[in-house]
Amino acid sequence: MSHTDNRFSLHPDRLFSSDTTERAISRALYNSIKDLPIISPHGHTDPRWFAENTCFNNATELLIIPDHYVFRMLYSQGITLESLGIPALDGSASETDYLKVWKVFASHYHLFHGTPSRGWMDYVFCEVFGFEVELNAANAEYFFDTINKALATDAFRPRELLKRFNIELLATTEGATDSLSHHGKLKGSGLEKTVITTFRPDDVVDPQIRNFTKNIEKLGTLTGEDVYSWQGYLNALRHRREFFRNHGATATDHGHATPLTADLSLVACEALFHKIIAGDASVQDQELFRGQMLTEMAGMSLEDGMVMQIHPGVHRNHNAAVFQQFGADKGCDIPVSTEYVNNLKPLLAKYGNEKDLRIILFTLDEDNYSRELAPLAGHYPCLKLGPAWWFNDSPEGMLRYRHQVTETAGFYNTVGFNDDTRAFLSIPARHDVARRIDCRFLGHLVAQHRMTESAAYQLAHDLAYRLAKEGYQNCLA
Amino acid sequence: MSHTDNRFSLHPDRLFSSDTTERAISRALYNSIKDLPIISPHGHTDPRWFAENTCFNNATELLIIPDHYVFRMLYSQGITLESLGIPALDGSASETDYLKVWKVFASHYHLFHGTPSRGWMDYVFCEVFGFEVELNAANAEYFFDTINKALATDAFRPRELLKRFNIELLATTEGATDSLSHHGKLKGSGLEKTVITTFRPDDVVDPQIRNFTKNIEKLGTLTGEDVYSWQGYLNALRHRREFFRNHGATATDHGHATPLTADLSLVACEALFHKIIAGDASVQDQELFRGQMLTEMAGMSLEDGMVMQIHPGVHRNHNAAVFQQFGADKGCDIPVSTEYVNNLKPLLAKYGNEKDLRIILFTLDEDNYSRELAPLAGHYPCLKLGPAWWFNDSPEGMLRYRHQVTETAGFYNTVGFNDDTRAFLSIPARHDVARRIDCRFLGHLVAQHRMTESAAYQLAHDLAYRLAKEGYQNCLA
Amino acid sequence: MSHTDNRFSLHPDRLFSSDTTERAISRALYNSIKDLPIISPHGHTDPRWFAENTCFNNATELLIIPDHYVFRMLYSQGITLESLGIPALDGSASETDYLKVWKVFASHYHLFHGTPSRGWMDYVFCEVFGFEVELNAANAEYFFDTINKALATDAFRPRELLKRFNIELLATTEGATDSLSHHGKLKGSGLEKTVITTFRPDDVVDPQIRNFTKNIEKLGTLTGEDVYSWQGYLNALRHRREFFRNHGATATDHGHATPLTADLSLVACEALFHKIIAGDASVQDQELFRGQMLTEMAGMSLEDGMVMQIHPGVHRNHNAAVFQQFGADKGCDIPVSTEYVNNLKPLLAKYGNEKDLRIILFTLDEDNYSRELAPLAGHYPCLKLGPAWWFNDSPEGMLRYRHQVTETAGFYNTVGFNDDTRAFLSIPARHDVARRIDCRFLGHLVAQHRMTESAAYQLAHDLAYRLAKEGYQNCLA
Repeated sequence: MSHTDNRFSLHPDRLFSSDTTERAISRALYNSIKDLPIISPHGHTDPRWFAENTCFNNATELLIIPDHYVFRMLYSQGITLESLGIPALDGSASETDYLKVWKVFASHYHLFHGTPSRGWMDYVFCEVFGFEVELNAANAEYFFDTINKALATDAFRPRELLKRFNIELLATTEGATDSLSHHGKLKGSGLEKTVITTFRPDDVVDPQIRNFTKNIEKLGTLTGEDVYSWQGYLNALRHRREFFRNHGATATDHGHATPLTADLSLVACEALFHKIIAGDASVQDQELFRGQMLTEMAGMSLEDGMVMQIHPGVHRNHNAAVFQQFGADKGCDIPVSTEYVNNLKPLLAKYGNEKDLRIILFTLDEDNYSRELAPLAGHYPCLKLGPAWWFNDSPEGMLRYRHQVTETAGFYNTVGFNDDTRAFLSIPARHDVARRIDCRFLGHLVAQHRMTESAAYQLAHDLAYRLAKEGYQNCLA
Repeated sequence: MSHTDNRFSLHPDRLFSSDTTERAISRALYNSIKDLPIISPHGHTDPRWFAENTCFNNATELLIIPDHYVFRMLYSQGITLESLGIPALDGSASETDYLKVWKVFASHYHLFHGTPSRGWMDYVFCEVFGFEVELNAANAEYFFDTINKALATDAFRPRELLKRFNIELLATTEGATDSLSHHGKLKGSGLEKTVITTFRPDDVVDPQIRNFTKNIEKLGTLTGEDVYSWQGYLNALRHRREFFRNHGATATDHGHATPLTADLSLVACEALFHKIIAGDASVQDQELFRGQMLTEMAGMSLEDGMVMQIHPGVHRNHNAAVFQQFGADKGCDIPVSTEYVNNLKPLLAKYGNEKDLRIILFTLDEDNYSRELAPLAGHYPCLKLGPAWWFNDSPEGMLRYRHQVTETAGFYNTVGFNDDTRAFLSIPARHDVARRIDCRFLGHLVAQHRMTESAAYQLAHDLAYRLAKEGYQNCLA
Repeated sequence: MSHTDNRFSLHPDRLFSSDTTERAISRALYNSIKDLPIISPHGHTDPRWFAENTCFNNATELLIIPDHYVFRMLYSQGITLESLGIPALDGSASETDYLKVWKVFASHYHLFHGTPSRGWMDYVFCEVFGFEVELNAANAEYFFDTINKALATDAFRPRELLKRFNIELLATTEGATDSLSHHGKLKGSGLEKTVITTFRPDDVVDPQIRNFTKNIEKLGTLTGEDVYSWQGYLNALRHRREFFRNHGATATDHGHATPLTADLSLVACEALFHKIIAGDASVQDQELFRGQMLTEMAGMSLEDGMVMQIHPGVHRNHNAAVFQQFGADKGCDIPVSTEYVNNLKPLLAKYGNEKDLRIILFTLDEDNYSRELAPLAGHYPCLKLGPAWWFNDSPEGMLRYRHQVTETAGFYNTVGFNDDTRAFLSIPARHDVARRIDCRFLGHLVAQHRMTESAAYQLAHDLAYRLAKEGYQNCLA
């Protein structure tokens, strides 16, 4: 990391405080937990990779095209998505010369200074592929070729990487009507408890989602239930939850626009449901229906033990032009101000005091950490806080999270780290950041005599491994 | 604080930065002010203790059952309030084996790592009771017995502790119709200027409070005023303010849901008041009435010199089930987003430029520090900022407060520390945290050459003592 | 800066971290960029100074009376604006003994401990006037006399100070109907590219501004357009933009209450415009009109290349009594909660993907940094983030900005520093703070091995000079 030398490597003390006292404690804590297996209980990798175990194609298709953190930054600086090889929905031309795309990325690598993407990518280059120089415009082709050669070897097949990365558990996320065929193929492979699914019913619960009507129809076909009656619809969801549990799922996930919940009477539920099914629902009805469904899902979690995750507060597809041309998940999702105290009240009034229910809350609105979320999780038995999420899954974001959450919610109302990524190769990098930052925070407390060292060692282990492992296995316990 | 040794003590440098330069400055500043008397101008201790001066019962009844910070954390992890000895409103069974409760607390003491409760409790154990080991499940009975034996001695009677804690002033808080009998008994004891009351009229000003109608009736009885006329009602409040001042009060306190204020015409006030009295008021009317009453109280403060404190922005009793079974103040109050700029405008338009009026604003919504509160307090002569409050009365909360408030409001638009506690034994611990964190912040500025050392010494004294003493004695000045 | 010595000077390491590792890196970075010319692309100095180049009058009229940061703090502590020499609108008596005013300021200089005003003022005293002691009540007259003598010399004439301060570019801000006579005088002086104007059309775009009707009339007179037709009005604005560009302007500035934008049909625009002109518009209509005009201005920026700045989220003139007596810009403006994601959507839907458009967003609501602004700027090609603004133009405010913005928006979606000041003598002080804090932040990243030193040197230069220079010269490029 010198000003003149070209050699580049990850510094062993990276991300720790530069204060020598804190750093020494954090380093010792980190060394005690850095080799623990990875528990990745929430993410978006493709289960096909692990089912089929074929080689990845090339650096661009693996590292650039699926990573919206990467191409949103390039796009913000005037580089078109076409030129980055992002496929258009209508099949119109996008760049298919992947070396050319890679060179665009490499020659703009300075844009990522100070971002978590830079840290993850450098980790992938140094630790996964063994590079000893920094990527730049001049060496782009060398990187591209070296990576592609590695990817063609057996050592870089998905299942080999799972082992090499020391991943004990990896949860993917599938929609309610998914066949789970890839997870099905894993049965008997020895990986069926390593790669599991997560039940994400947004597509049959949110009337504003494209193809909602078709999804409901499919739900009926799959389950044999009368999904046009309220009870039949609920039973169909129960069936699918069971089907997902049979493919390893221990959790559900809910990506609603707001954390609104509702607790309507049976009569009101039926009336609302029929409006929704008939396509007569207003925007307010649709919001209310999603809110009622969160409460229904909590009730089913109490029945079947699945952990419930709520990920609210994103304005999806804010850039309509990009959405129309390229579809969802193209870096156009923008967080909005979010309110939990009143929105969650109906659900909490019904189920909040249940000890056997576990609801994990996430936010992109950091204002909520100290004002709403830590006080809620520090009181209600059913609530836990998920880690710093998405844009806040970063060194600074994680530090703000611990600094703002811990004093009111403690450590034991949090659930360890989620990488939440579709970038498979970055998983070890992301967990390494989380482990380093947690050890940094603990070292900070110890150095200021706010915690004993022995407590910090226990907590370092809990935050790196135990809380995630236990926190997501409610239904297996 | 070693990894292997069982000895435990409070480190003399706790809570200071681990940077050696900053730490040395902060330590020197702290040593210059640590022995100053405690001014506690806002809190919730029981005046009966000081009036009757009887011994405290036992560790559990003194340290666990009244402390909602403690039992809300235990509750969040699935421990029932019954098992913690919290009495139910209907008299149904709660645990009365206080050793058993104490053991539950001790065996879950790790839940408090990183929380202010842990720091306060460790201080009480080490400094007040002289323990040299950490509390844990194994030594719980030893702690319980040792504490109980100490509490039975004269040295631990309330008035002895007041002296030992070097408390120069302790304000309690009483409702508008309180008889103030305990403060009455203190007259002639030599403590009548040490333990004073605070006038909190929420129970006769907020129509949504239980027994509002009865409270109004009692207000009439106590004052002989026609409390069913607007002017009679206002005069009755004037009488009670005078009665409170005669029991030492220098301040009023207002715990409204929002900081809404209003400045209605006399005719509109009378019409609104009659609706309220008749029980015909809508929720909006009730909110408006509370808003008008804040303005009326400000006007009376200008008449009689009492300092006015506004503590808004809490959703009280969010967990209805717990509220119904156990009542208020059971850890179920959750902060909400709060707006000051528009809400305070009517009051400020009427009285904001009065130099002889002092209104102290508090918040649980830290967003407001840099955006609204520091700019308001840095302009309006009547406004001052109260310290970091409740969930933010913590090392991190206090640091955020100073970092976010100081540049716009300075130090002299703040009023020193409030412990705001019903946990009497923790008062020295809480003031010690505030003094350490203020000296930490000042040391930080000095070490970065943003302030001279001589200025920091003056400020350390002002923040620890003078601002609180002068800030709350407006009506005596 | 010792406790006993009276000598006072600015410490060469001020504002850097006290951590020795970070400090050494930050100092080296700072030394590499501290002598770069100042680019001041947004501010409020008086162009008359540079056109006429007459001497400044005295310390009070130069340093106190125009500086609302200074007198708002004094006012908050009960010092009247009259006694500070602030002129009343009706000509009623204000203090004209400027030495007396200066003494009030000096004897209250402790109020500014920990504020940016203190740092700027100390810089002006030490670096611009050469004082070696701190200002206090005892030496107030010595300061006053020394400053006044200096101001009477040629070396302190405005144009000499421009050179001495190494100011390469200074943008002032003028209303749409301003004659720009002072900038006109600069033509041929050699300063016409140094002191430029900025087009601020609020006075002809915001119907709530005093004299809106007269301003529209004047707009018509100046341009010869039929400003009572929608197209004529828009063309008149085009003319004025061109007139401003002919006086050096490269940017426009928009001080709206909210960042609401609109994209109405032509018919709806015309109907709304006629309501506005007829004086029949509701408050909602007026807000909508301002929103439509932001979109129109963006469209014109795309035509003519001017950079567009949006400065929303201030409740102007919150203290009506002060506004009535003394007018605007008297320290009574208070920030309010601001929402960008939905408000900007209409404009962004129309122009957000334009690479040749540059819109710079500012905020006083720091919640938006990580939640809304960094995600928006990290995606939309047209968006850039302005620096920490107004109350947040301070060491802590700048640190929060970099810590909260960088991970999602990077450095290259920001635009360097703006001093935004009418306090000419403080310009070097303000840029020095920005350069120090940016080098502090970069040193922090390098010391924690989150960035290489060579990257930090490049970024230090970009943040201090290149981004501001290039970022505001869109229309010249």
